[in-house]
Amino acid sequence: MTKKKQLRRICVDMDEVMADTLAEFLRRYNETFDDAVTPEDLVGKGLWEVAPFDRQQQLRAFLDAEDFFEDLDVMADAQPVLKALSQRFDLYIATQAMIVPNSLGPKYRWLQRHFPFIPPTNYVFCGDKRILRADYLIDDLPSNLACFEGTGLLYSAPHNMTVTGYMRVSNWQEVAAYFEQVKI
Amino acid sequence: MTKKKQLRRICVDMDEVMADTLAEFLRRYNETFDDAVTPEDLVGKGLWEVAPFDRQQQLRAFLDAEDFFEDLDVMADAQPVLKALSQRFDLYIATQAMIVPNSLGPKYRWLQRHFPFIPPTNYVFCGDKRILRADYLIDDLPSNLACFEGTGLLYSAPHNMTVTGYMRVSNWQEVAAYFEQVKI
Repeated sequence: MTKKKQLRRICVDMDEVMADTLAEFLRRYNETFDDAVTPEDLVGKGLWEVAPFDRQQQLRAFLDAEDFFEDLDVMADAQPVLKALSQRFDLYIATQAMIVPNSLGPKYRWLQRHFPFIPPTNYVFCGDKRILRADYLIDDLPSNLACFEGTGLLYSAPHNMTVTGYMRVSNWQEVAAYFEQVKI
Repeated sequence: MTKKKQLRRICVDMDEVMADTLAEFLRRYNETFDDAVTPEDLVGKGLWEVAPFDRQQQLRAFLDAEDFFEDLDVMADAQPVLKALSQRFDLYIATQAMIVPNSLGPKYRWLQRHFPFIPPTNYVFCGDKRILRADYLIDDLPSNLACFEGTGLLYSAPHNMTVTGYMRVSNWQEVAAYFEQVKI
């Protein structure tokens, strides 16, 4: 407890930061509709803005599927960088799981499987991220960073590439470099 | 968003605060072991301290059962008092669900069923409650209040009756009375 209190606290978002959610979303979309949308087609926008009206309902159904969040790929370098950060910082995972309740179990198991060095006591499944008391938040959603009271780091994703006004990190090596210069 | 920022924030624990978890725990225990332990037998201690050694494993199994958290009784007056508080405060539910992962789905459904006026975006399923950024936390566990940085209110439960050093509320009417005198 004393050790934790002294360390600075980082919250890390899951989807499109730790997990390649977009890849799975596009895989199911392209497979279902025999389409070929790529991440490059989604610069500055979400799949919701690109998909025709009659496919909108299915987009939500992809996310609601019980297995959607079960086997997402891990973002490159997320594991070693987070493992190193967990030695120097008080590390929490904070994900907006409440908007897709079927994701609760899969997200829990995914974290245990791929990030066993982060204890479940440090998982936060939430909705509104203004509830987080931390020094840093790494997130791909500007709306989450906007309501966070600490220092926000915008993790690059196609949808946020046109957003300005936030410190940006493009990959996990850049996250590592950023926290290298943070005094603990 | 502006409205939320202006309101003071209250986090409310679920088990033994909103939900009568102990009643269900004792019901399963007494039924399984043909025993007659009552809440009065547990003043100042947990069932873990009272149960013989050879029943300890089963205690954990009760909590891990997929249906344990599904149908807990709602604490008297919790609904009207929380509904009234939700008009004057920024209300969040914060529960240590991560220690019993099977509780994630049941807790979500229970909140939706009994407290439909609280949006899922305001549910926080966590472990360590030091992560909460709020003005108040109502909780039956002194260890949760100890690491919380705002004002803690200890909700009376048999196990915490010998604890001192916290502002105590014995029921939901006392919670209502406490927040009546808080300026918003």
